[in-house]
Amino acid sequence: MAAIGQRLYEQVAGRVRDQITRRTYRPGDRLPSVRELSRAYKVSITTVLDAYRLLEDQGFIHPRPQSGHYVRSRPSALPAEPDRTQPSLEPAEFRREVLLEQMMNDAYREGVLSLAFATPNPELRPVAKLNRITAQVIRDMPSIAYGYMEPGGHRALREQIAQRLFEAGCSVSPGDIVITSGCQEALLLALRAACKPGGAVAVESPCYHGVLLATRLAGLKAVEIETRSREGICIEKLEEALSTAYGTSRQIQAVMLSTNFGNPLGGQLSETDKQRLVEVCKRYEASIIEDDIYGDLGYDDGRPSVAKAYDDSDTVLLCSSFSKTLAPGARVGWVVSGKHRSAIERSKYAMNICAASLGQVVISEFLNNGGYDHYLRRVRKIHEANVRQVSDAVCRHFPEGTKMTRPLGGFVIWVELPNEINSLALYAKSIANGVMFTPGMLFSAHDQYRNFLRISCSRWDATIDRGIATIGRLAHAMA
Amino acid sequence: MAAIGQRLYEQVAGRVRDQITRRTYRPGDRLPSVRELSRAYKVSITTVLDAYRLLEDQGFIHPRPQSGHYVRSRPSALPAEPDRTQPSLEPAEFRREVLLEQMMNDAYREGVLSLAFATPNPELRPVAKLNRITAQVIRDMPSIAYGYMEPGGHRALREQIAQRLFEAGCSVSPGDIVITSGCQEALLLALRAACKPGGAVAVESPCYHGVLLATRLAGLKAVEIETRSREGICIEKLEEALSTAYGTSRQIQAVMLSTNFGNPLGGQLSETDKQRLVEVCKRYEASIIEDDIYGDLGYDDGRPSVAKAYDDSDTVLLCSSFSKTLAPGARVGWVVSGKHRSAIERSKYAMNICAASLGQVVISEFLNNGGYDHYLRRVRKIHEANVRQVSDAVCRHFPEGTKMTRPLGGFVIWVELPNEINSLALYAKSIANGVMFTPGMLFSAHDQYRNFLRISCSRWDATIDRGIATIGRLAHAMA
Repeated sequence: MAAIGQRLYEQVAGRVRDQITRRTYRPGDRLPSVRELSRAYKVSITTVLDAYRLLEDQGFIHPRPQSGHYVRSRPSALPAEPDRTQPSLEPAEFRREVLLEQMMNDAYREGVLSLAFATPNPELRPVAKLNRITAQVIRDMPSIAYGYMEPGGHRALREQIAQRLFEAGCSVSPGDIVITSGCQEALLLALRAACKPGGAVAVESPCYHGVLLATRLAGLKAVEIETRSREGICIEKLEEALSTAYGTSRQIQAVMLSTNFGNPLGGQLSETDKQRLVEVCKRYEASIIEDDIYGDLGYDDGRPSVAKAYDDSDTVLLCSSFSKTLAPGARVGWVVSGKHRSAIERSKYAMNICAASLGQVVISEFLNNGGYDHYLRRVRKIHEANVRQVSDAVCRHFPEGTKMTRPLGGFVIWVELPNEINSLALYAKSIANGVMFTPGMLFSAHDQYRNFLRISCSRWDATIDRGIATIGRLAHAMA
Repeated sequence: MAAIGQRLYEQVAGRVRDQITRRTYRPGDRLPSVRELSRAYKVSITTVLDAYRLLEDQGFIHPRPQSGHYVRSRPSALPAEPDRTQPSLEPAEFRREVLLEQMMNDAYREGVLSLAFATPNPELRPVAKLNRITAQVIRDMPSIAYGYMEPGGHRALREQIAQRLFEAGCSVSPGDIVITSGCQEALLLALRAACKPGGAVAVESPCYHGVLLATRLAGLKAVEIETRSREGICIEKLEEALSTAYGTSRQIQAVMLSTNFGNPLGGQLSETDKQRLVEVCKRYEASIIEDDIYGDLGYDDGRPSVAKAYDDSDTVLLCSSFSKTLAPGARVGWVVSGKHRSAIERSKYAMNICAASLGQVVISEFLNNGGYDHYLRRVRKIHEANVRQVSDAVCRHFPEGTKMTRPLGGFVIWVELPNEINSLALYAKSIANGVMFTPGMLFSAHDQYRNFLRISCSRWDATIDRGIATIGRLAHAMA
């Protein structure tokens, strides 16, 4: 089976890859240990290590410290992924609020099936545990639960977050963390601290509309940078944009992006790219505002690292929340504030004094003894399965030529329709039939992504299948 | 007893006033009905009505619909009230964040007695009821309690607020109300909607620092307007400022003030002045941002009206919260948004999506069936008593020449020390002795109120008395 000229470790890697392709080893399975494989194939330990490193580089497997090598989740038998985008580098202001407002009103209309917003499935929520902890907190510490919270947020929660960040490769002290009213507010506070109004911020393209809204609210313009479906923002293009504008009045003051499972693409920067990102931004004096809201929701087990892990110069402001995992309604997010700590705490106070207290304490108790990791392992598998089911349904129902992402985490997919189908017109027809999705134009400040749409995959059942069939039927009629 | 030349109704009024001064009728007592008094004094019904109207104008009594006339709370045997202030009309930016940050850190140090922040006394909180309602809400509607809230906020809460506003003289629809993360955020969102960055906003002087911080965060300058201890902002001075700047680049775009029990003065605009306020602002095209956070905490029974009640042209943005009454930690406030509704909802979404859900539902249930009015009646009396106790303690312990306000609601007093005592220097000494208050300079963007301080009266016990004695002793040493 080995190709001519292949080196020994490449041959070993090829054999293991075959086992994965044939699903002898399935996503999440542990591969034989290095020692076992060395014995089985009668090759040296070094050769096996080289083979595993190659498979890791190719994205087939991933190592877990003290545990071994595991098969990565890889989609198959799905249509092609969307083409690379070539966004305009012209800074622009996002002006799609009217559409967004219309959509939010639509979403609360009775009988509407919404596949639009990235709302976690309430049925996955650990309600019994959250209720038990809430009851305990209001009984045992009502003055904390109902009173103003201290500046920066609940101390125990900040300690828990700092501990969890250690698993993502970061050493931050609890005092560096400021608790915010969700991740959206964390992003806004980070933008305000790192940028001067009137300036420019680099963002991914396509870009989550919340990021574009925060940018606008902070009085900044967004420069949209090419982002690959699977591998995240294109560091070369980012560097080009940073260096071109550097030293001019259009200098880019910050880069706001997700390094793990961004919205809407669901891709992930490699470790090398995370490191390069930090180096490049440091060189061009741009802060990194890292949105890690989906960081705990990768389909592979284990917590991926963040760009902040490579940050030795306080360049990265790391933002996240518990809105996609535990309870969006708690509005509990956070930002690792570093040198901007005072500025961020002051803005937070001037904005709304502090985040709601009860949710902070409840989440802190949940992290402390509620089995958060166990819960995450369970929901990650469900998300992966749901994304797969929804993707298959799109395959079945949408017109030929439809492409879609194969996310590595989170619970949305980004769908490219044949060029002639305008997704805003499709939205109008679809909502008239009681089904909602997010039109692509909400993901850029420019006139882009007209034939794209985002679908939330947080749930899967026959209703969802019928909803996707409805969108597909309407799209067919427009093709 | 009647003075020469007095008319009959003035004589009747004088007799009733005597009864009040002699405390035959005490604050809160119901006076004889018009018919009873007419019989007792053998005068006509009209004469009694005229007499009661005069006493009302003089601030001795107040009518309650369908119930009769009641004696107003009036302080006595207290030192003089602070002199009128003459603030600079120069627009200015507030830059006292370092001091404020220091104070917040001080407040969370162990063993510090804080009389600084206007934090409601946790012991007054209806914890048992809040706990019972919270337990019920998480059991019966977990998907609402833990999920994202709809744009604008929890519908049932907005209905409750609209109903309560009817008692304050306003007809607003629930759809006009946007729920915010506390009153501070409501003020900020109102400012952003009503003003363009770079513009000017008129505020009271002395002015609550949260208002000055919000103004600054919105990129606006504050113009400080003379405000009387008892009667609220001086409408003549406000009109002068509005008219002088009108049509110039310094035009004042909004007036942000409290018409009932403002912080720190605790005064109240008369009905006539509330009406004039609306007329004047309408004439000079300035929005009114009315901060009603203490509106439910007047010492007289009954809900006072707001300027919004006189607003027939959508000039007033009315803001408030439940932070001074039920639970600051819930971070539940609101703004009556009127024509700015879309703009405010969009900013709220871009800022932090929505206010925390559980607190919205719990407060809505509390308003619906938790006996909120009964609770308010109880805490108002306690606040009045505590303010009186703290005021007496200041009288006992502070140097001669100290003046202080006699608030009509809320739970803070504003103290004027003899001119030579710098309250910031006094703060430094006081905190070294473990006692905190708020130095006067936090209440102006100008270099003002150096010999003033604010004391929170939310609690009263021997510890508080000792704390005030400590401040007094240190002040004596500086006099």
